[in-house]
Amino acid sequence: MTIENLSSNKSFGGWHKQYRHRSEVLNCDMRFAIYLPPQAAGGEQVPVLYWLSGLTCTDENFMQKAGAQQVAAELGIAIVAPDTSPRGDAVADVEGYDLGQGAGFYVNATQDPWSRHYHMYDYVLEELPALVEALFPVSDKRAISGHSMGGHGALVLALRNPERFQSVSAFSPIANPVNCPWGQKAFTAYLGENGADWAEYDASLLMRHTTGKLPALVDQGEADNFLAEQLKPEALAAAAAASDYPLQLRRHEGYDHSYYFIASFIGEHLRFHAEHLGL
Amino acid sequence: MTIENLSSNKSFGGWHKQYRHRSEVLNCDMRFAIYLPPQAAGGEQVPVLYWLSGLTCTDENFMQKAGAQQVAAELGIAIVAPDTSPRGDAVADVEGYDLGQGAGFYVNATQDPWSRHYHMYDYVLEELPALVEALFPVSDKRAISGHSMGGHGALVLALRNPERFQSVSAFSPIANPVNCPWGQKAFTAYLGENGADWAEYDASLLMRHTTGKLPALVDQGEADNFLAEQLKPEALAAAAAASDYPLQLRRHEGYDHSYYFIASFIGEHLRFHAEHLGL
Repeated sequence: MTIENLSSNKSFGGWHKQYRHRSEVLNCDMRFAIYLPPQAAGGEQVPVLYWLSGLTCTDENFMQKAGAQQVAAELGIAIVAPDTSPRGDAVADVEGYDLGQGAGFYVNATQDPWSRHYHMYDYVLEELPALVEALFPVSDKRAISGHSMGGHGALVLALRNPERFQSVSAFSPIANPVNCPWGQKAFTAYLGENGADWAEYDASLLMRHTTGKLPALVDQGEADNFLAEQLKPEALAAAAAASDYPLQLRRHEGYDHSYYFIASFIGEHLRFHAEHLGL
Repeated sequence: MTIENLSSNKSFGGWHKQYRHRSEVLNCDMRFAIYLPPQAAGGEQVPVLYWLSGLTCTDENFMQKAGAQQVAAELGIAIVAPDTSPRGDAVADVEGYDLGQGAGFYVNATQDPWSRHYHMYDYVLEELPALVEALFPVSDKRAISGHSMGGHGALVLALRNPERFQSVSAFSPIANPVNCPWGQKAFTAYLGENGADWAEYDASLLMRHTTGKLPALVDQGEADNFLAEQLKPEALAAAAAASDYPLQLRRHEGYDHSYYFIASFIGEHLRFHAEHLGL
């Protein structure tokens, strides 16, 4: 296992660091970022929040723009932000922001040419946590959150693997991808035409019949340009009602799809996760 | 006076907005950003912190990365972030990040070809506050702060115009530009060879003989790559000691020149300014 430290910045008494490593699951080099709160320097094993970003993002957007590190430092939570897809000249890509590099959709692709590298589901679920838990002073207590495409990823990973996480949250998730243009385009390319395969990556379908139930918090801005066509939180709300899932879905007047919305409420998400991480 | 609203994002109950306007002083179109805290929506006139960014920045860097809006919303302070130079195809520029567009150094240039547009000192001191105070629900109570080149600008503007501001602060300022490569390159180009002209834009020289004294807070990271060659806070400390200037200069072990450093302490700067703004 080779891993290279690319940057280190002291932040709120802890450290923001970027690393490059070889991913076996993705068959390419990957970069991720970690925020280690001050408590981690004292030998304490801190829990980890995995943050999954949205279309076009890298590991940097959340770390630079969300303003999460102040509350993470206060509570003693590490944050890990992976990239949003496999990367590199050898990795399949197309024109456009919503498919290919920067748009992995947190699935395991089964279709050519994507299946050679696009296994972000396995990467985020298994390979990255194993790496993080081997290298850093973190516990195996995990929470997961994300934004937009990453909110979809966080909900799907938590719904399918409730034993792996203590809690899940999302901002503006693509909540019912089988019924929106972004999801239909990506799932057709990555997964083919079989609806049963699609259903394994749709939070609103999964939430109707999942057995393990995690505390879940979802925030959605009412002034989000993508709300009606792409995000569809009403499908998630209906699924939660049908299965009695412990979902807290909040709608916020005036907020849009940007990181200003995330910054405004990320502190509340961190406190929500802290409660379920036993902090 | 024409002014165009380019974007609006709700943030911590207030609003981040970007505007484009015609600057007479700079002889070009300019963009700036303003954060209006929730208190401003209630008809209250809030004080304004002017934030001056560093080399290569625009109005966006601070607003997206500093995490300042949470505390600004709590305290009821508006924040205005101008661009760092005149802009546009008609505006003189050169290769390199430290002269020309993105590197106005908050001076009034006297030398060709710069003197046609590069009057950032007058823009930040007069034209922009007049515009802001005419259009938004803000008072004439002003504070000023900035980072690196912008920390230099904030200190110079406050030292030469103590009647215009209640308080001044800076992160990692270019504290003695006549004695560092960045300052010498910019001042030679913008101001020519006359040392007396340079001295009007050097905080460490100005602080030795200013009459009006403002509360001043400066934070400097000890792991800042530019500390020894470009920033020289020791010159500012010596000037403050010589003139009994009320400067609080803090050095922070491990912190670098990045926005992670600014984010870690911007809340303390806002509280410092709030105290002197009468909040």
